[in-house]
Amino acid sequence: MKTLTRVIQVKEEIRDMRSQGKTIGFVPTMGYLHEGHLNLIRESLRKTDVTVVSIFVNPAQFGPGEDFARYPRNLERDSEILKKEGVDCLFVPGPEEMFHKGHNTYVDVYDLKDKLCGRSRPTQFRGVCTVVLKLFNIVGPDVSYFGQKDAQQAIILKRMVEDLNLDVKIDVLPIAREEDGLALSSRNEYLNKEERKAALVLSKGLKEAQMMVEKREEKSEAIIDRVKEMISQEPLAKMDYVEIVDMDNLDPVVRIEKETLAVLAVFVGKARLIDNAILRPKE
Amino acid sequence: MKTLTRVIQVKEEIRDMRSQGKTIGFVPTMGYLHEGHLNLIRESLRKTDVTVVSIFVNPAQFGPGEDFARYPRNLERDSEILKKEGVDCLFVPGPEEMFHKGHNTYVDVYDLKDKLCGRSRPTQFRGVCTVVLKLFNIVGPDVSYFGQKDAQQAIILKRMVEDLNLDVKIDVLPIAREEDGLALSSRNEYLNKEERKAALVLSKGLKEAQMMVEKREEKSEAIIDRVKEMISQEPLAKMDYVEIVDMDNLDPVVRIEKETLAVLAVFVGKARLIDNAILRPKE
Repeated sequence: MKTLTRVIQVKEEIRDMRSQGKTIGFVPTMGYLHEGHLNLIRESLRKTDVTVVSIFVNPAQFGPGEDFARYPRNLERDSEILKKEGVDCLFVPGPEEMFHKGHNTYVDVYDLKDKLCGRSRPTQFRGVCTVVLKLFNIVGPDVSYFGQKDAQQAIILKRMVEDLNLDVKIDVLPIAREEDGLALSSRNEYLNKEERKAALVLSKGLKEAQMMVEKREEKSEAIIDRVKEMISQEPLAKMDYVEIVDMDNLDPVVRIEKETLAVLAVFVGKARLIDNAILRPKE
Repeated sequence: MKTLTRVIQVKEEIRDMRSQGKTIGFVPTMGYLHEGHLNLIRESLRKTDVTVVSIFVNPAQFGPGEDFARYPRNLERDSEILKKEGVDCLFVPGPEEMFHKGHNTYVDVYDLKDKLCGRSRPTQFRGVCTVVLKLFNIVGPDVSYFGQKDAQQAIILKRMVEDLNLDVKIDVLPIAREEDGLALSSRNEYLNKEERKAALVLSKGLKEAQMMVEKREEKSEAIIDRVKEMISQEPLAKMDYVEIVDMDNLDPVVRIEKETLAVLAVFVGKARLIDNAILRPKE
């Protein structure tokens, strides 16, 4: 595995691979890798000739007072894991390599960026879009892999790719979960033992939502109320939002008449956790 | 010359040219071509294997109440001119081809976008950056040519290209002028005979600024006052701005101690005209 820290090195490497007619798969990450990341990487290894992984804890997607400084990092361990998986190239730029002095260009996907997580984290998706666009321009992948856990991010990036006429395909893979249901996230690291238990309220709430739809509940309000009630009964949890929204435009859905997205964000201890599930009404 | 209206056609054409190892030169325009455009096109024809010209009157760079509807258009004449010049490919997308339903992604180069023309036309450079980035992604040029007449645009696009890690080189060519000094612009079309004469106040003001620097005037204020006085003496002209700014960051310069940009915008009749000149102090 080649480990590169400079943009120019990656561009050279990719030009070389391209000239050999190879297809490029790309998995951008913030590191501290878990099974969720590995699912994306293994899919890239299966489907493309060359797999590039980036590790960059992107300052632009953290707001003031958020967890940029204490976001978990372990490059040595990550690097070992990626080598073992058979990744071809690891790109680990420093902050000045990605945001040089004078950088002042930002990309926004309007409306979508202000919904759901955008309300609590107003600059997050500007940071995500800008850095992902830069990485796409550096790596020039045929396919890039993202997790459904960050559902809003995936929807926004798909819109950006279409709007800006980029050639990369965005492939979104299902949420990876612990056996007890907790969605994998580098931020689970923040949870102590009690909080780890309390954090189950997210996946349990979504399971409850799915069960209600199964039982022909169509009213979003009834489902949302039930999930909020479950969260309020968990003393270590504090709700940020619970919503049922359209899969394309993230607008609230009143009656669940087709596939719809249940999404929530909950503070548990120092962690702000997110999770989501697709609700499929019976015919 | 191939004339294409669909993004997908251009991408195919370029893929074909690339596979033959050809270099691509690109001149994005809003049409109604004049000698200024032709200078860019001829440079591209000299320097690259394949020259692509686009004609797209970009609605996103006009504000409400501006001249989008009456901006001069003459595709038939433009097309004849380009054929005669030997251009390889003309891309003429319709508005829905560039901004499909649901388009909501925009690119901004902060600070720079709000200076000079950005003050009178607050959404102009967002529109320019977004559409030029899209065109770069569609055409994938090695070099793209722009005129120094739109000095702020050129500076902003260079910043965007660097910030977003794009591979295209931005080449900026000198202002093309009529014999009497008027900078060429499609908007000169708006001028009647009297206004055409009055419009000379822009280039004459810049000449005066250059002469004052020649005579060792170093204070921007003195020069700006003199140019403003000249404009105020022209009854058909109304000043928008006159400034002397840093060539890189467009910040006002108090003392002219190195190469500096004198820029102005003046309303003459229905036209808002811009012009600029580089001030070079004596050693």
